[in-house]
Amino acid sequence: MKCSVLFIEILIFGINFSSGEYVYNVNYVDVPVDHFSFTNNATFKLRYLINSSYWNNDGPIFFYTGNEGDINTFAQNSGFIWEIAPSFKALIVFCEHRYYGTSLPFGDKSFSDPIYVGYLHSAQALADFVYVIDHIQTLNGNGEDDSKNPVIAFGGSYGGMLSSWLRMKYPSSVLGAVASSAPILQFETPCDVFSSIVTSVFRTSSETNDCADVIKKSWSALRNVTGSAEGRQWLTKTWKLCDTLKDNDVEVLFNWLQDVYGNLAIVNYPYPTSFLSTLPANPVKAFCSKLPVTTHKPKPLIEELGRALNIYTNYTKQTKCVNITKSSWGGIDDFAWNFQACTEMIMPMCSTKRDMFEEQAWNYTKFSQDCYEVWKVHIARPNLAIREYGGKHLAAASNIIFTNGLMDPWSGGGVLQNVSRSVYAIVMPDTAHHLDLRGYNIADPPSVLNARYHIQVVIRKWIRTYYREYLNMYYH
Amino acid sequence: MKCSVLFIEILIFGINFSSGEYVYNVNYVDVPVDHFSFTNNATFKLRYLINSSYWNNDGPIFFYTGNEGDINTFAQNSGFIWEIAPSFKALIVFCEHRYYGTSLPFGDKSFSDPIYVGYLHSAQALADFVYVIDHIQTLNGNGEDDSKNPVIAFGGSYGGMLSSWLRMKYPSSVLGAVASSAPILQFETPCDVFSSIVTSVFRTSSETNDCADVIKKSWSALRNVTGSAEGRQWLTKTWKLCDTLKDNDVEVLFNWLQDVYGNLAIVNYPYPTSFLSTLPANPVKAFCSKLPVTTHKPKPLIEELGRALNIYTNYTKQTKCVNITKSSWGGIDDFAWNFQACTEMIMPMCSTKRDMFEEQAWNYTKFSQDCYEVWKVHIARPNLAIREYGGKHLAAASNIIFTNGLMDPWSGGGVLQNVSRSVYAIVMPDTAHHLDLRGYNIADPPSVLNARYHIQVVIRKWIRTYYREYLNMYYH
Repeated sequence: MKCSVLFIEILIFGINFSSGEYVYNVNYVDVPVDHFSFTNNATFKLRYLINSSYWNNDGPIFFYTGNEGDINTFAQNSGFIWEIAPSFKALIVFCEHRYYGTSLPFGDKSFSDPIYVGYLHSAQALADFVYVIDHIQTLNGNGEDDSKNPVIAFGGSYGGMLSSWLRMKYPSSVLGAVASSAPILQFETPCDVFSSIVTSVFRTSSETNDCADVIKKSWSALRNVTGSAEGRQWLTKTWKLCDTLKDNDVEVLFNWLQDVYGNLAIVNYPYPTSFLSTLPANPVKAFCSKLPVTTHKPKPLIEELGRALNIYTNYTKQTKCVNITKSSWGGIDDFAWNFQACTEMIMPMCSTKRDMFEEQAWNYTKFSQDCYEVWKVHIARPNLAIREYGGKHLAAASNIIFTNGLMDPWSGGGVLQNVSRSVYAIVMPDTAHHLDLRGYNIADPPSVLNARYHIQVVIRKWIRTYYREYLNMYYH
Repeated sequence: MKCSVLFIEILIFGINFSSGEYVYNVNYVDVPVDHFSFTNNATFKLRYLINSSYWNNDGPIFFYTGNEGDINTFAQNSGFIWEIAPSFKALIVFCEHRYYGTSLPFGDKSFSDPIYVGYLHSAQALADFVYVIDHIQTLNGNGEDDSKNPVIAFGGSYGGMLSSWLRMKYPSSVLGAVASSAPILQFETPCDVFSSIVTSVFRTSSETNDCADVIKKSWSALRNVTGSAEGRQWLTKTWKLCDTLKDNDVEVLFNWLQDVYGNLAIVNYPYPTSFLSTLPANPVKAFCSKLPVTTHKPKPLIEELGRALNIYTNYTKQTKCVNITKSSWGGIDDFAWNFQACTEMIMPMCSTKRDMFEEQAWNYTKFSQDCYEVWKVHIARPNLAIREYGGKHLAAASNIIFTNGLMDPWSGGGVLQNVSRSVYAIVMPDTAHHLDLRGYNIADPPSVLNARYHIQVVIRKWIRTYYREYLNMYYH
């Protein structure tokens, strides 16, 4: 279904955990299915991961606001939090987002009908987080308001959006938020900004040729070839597709390609990372280096492109065939995310003549029809998220750090300028999607190291002020 | 049912409208029944009142956040808003609260079952208000964010709580809030604070005797008399009760008396006001002046008390009999409010030896049992409101004015000290419940005149800043 809706990009987080580098206990809290009515009294088990190794009971709580996938993925790929927790003597909590991982309000039925999936709503997820924070404060004997441990929310991508919104909506529960690569403005930015940044990343990543230009040219070649059964047969074989390409799969293929290009730009990290498949360092550059196209004839161009795509689909050389119904990976649940993208997280996406994609307007009518077909839910309020979270009107917000890598396609929807004395924007010109939230790597660019330093200084200031003003406690 | 739950005081607003002094158009907007899930796509017609006589299209929107009753009541009893609107060139909107007045999401069925009444939730009401504000901005052609008219929320009592929460939760929709007599801290203040202030009002209002002391003594006299069928018969006749007092009506009577005393203190205004019945100026003083008790013998004391109660029940001398199942009046819906008090607006109430009431502990277990009997809804989260709105932790709030009269029993749950440079507390030592929000009266004490002046200065500053910073417009 993803294919039928243009550019419902997953706000991906990063790589799936493999080694389980970080350790924690797995706990569950019974949370209300519906925080905002009394029509449904049911509760369900929300999962959170917790590590108190570094904690001294007085320290802050570092609370990761889970996003669209298994919470283990985010715990294993947010090395920054683990690395700074000891010096803060922080309790580390990673809280799963409802309807992802094992936190399914209605078990197997959770996605089967609007009456079940309908509680998949960011406002409910935020209320879950507040519920869990309260629960953790109580575990620590801090039921009484004035002895609460200060909570810093962390999140990347959609999780970062949730971190910033959690601080905006529940400032008494959360002292401050670090929102990394959080495109909270994506609901109102020009729809071509994502395509435009992907194009720019491909354009600037190629050394010997204009990689973006080649991709731009490939669309008509692909249209040409896939226009006939014979051509589709040839493409299936040439690209080693798992299933023979049929006429009505052509749009699936095109959407899959768009996703692959977007994903390559998003995780264009300076060191190798592992997904379902594995990627080299600087994967866009690696992709482009495989695309020294000198011909513009359709078939040779498509053959070249197929070899370049292997960087994404078969870097390990273990992949038997390419499955174009799947462009993302373990840990991330693009099925559940599709529901969110279809109901409240409606981010208009398009591409123009200037982009390396096929020109494509944002078609809200088609989008909502496609969504209805899948979910049987009418989009009654396309601007729901703007209304609920205020869009770009952030003047009343406080204690939030927004970080964005300008090479990240999602940065077009990010907060790139300081809003006030306590709402900061940290911009990393040469960085992809929330690299700053990952653990240290020798290949990290200086902008990321600076951002990580800056974040620590700021949250230490928030926490110090909190201890001094509310708890009359010294905090070093 | 009210009787069975101790002190579910109505957060009353003021007098019912009689003359219809202020005029407006009555409009409706289709709003979602459930803003926070996709399980229920239904909408219902929410009523709002609008007056654009003073408006110049660029002016601010004065938006009254309706409380627990017919919105006309609040429109007719918020003279302050009407009086200052012309100098601000403001659009006046009074928006009804869902489940009150004619804004019933499920019509006649609205209260018949938890699946219908369950959407009566303050968070849903706030989302309604945001929805209506958006609607009004769009009517004015301000669909585009940057041309929005600044909105100032006004509210008294529970409506004031909603005004302050609206600013806290939706600062991009509402520039600032004037929250008059809004007991947002009543969820966590000591439970006897309400009883204690009522006692103080009665104590300080009597000129010739200690009125509170007489009331204090009356409880044992009433227990004594109502202990026998004969005594109840006598009391029925003496107090002209509509229905013969039965054994199991005694608690109803006691709760009714508590409510009457509370209400007298709440609307202890310096000029006559009209309810279902009519009250003289300074009604507590009037009540106490009718209670020159010299005897402590049960029956004579109760006779005196009956005459004093006539101030509340029969000031017009038109009342045929006293109905103890009803202590409040038209416009206010204590049935629907009871649901809110039973689910989220749980304000612990008690009275101690020092109060003029019978000593009574806060019994949460009994409270929740009584609530369950009426509504078939279990209170799963007694601290829901604190968690949702942050309780006393207001450090992150901005642009709110809290006004409180210290003679108002609800002021014990009010914000009485400045929180920050943009969250002000205005305290009126000699004033009852939100007198400042009413129209000018020659009998208004100077503290109220000062408060009204102060409010105007502050909201003009908010609006000026908004026009200058966001719209680059001059505002005088």
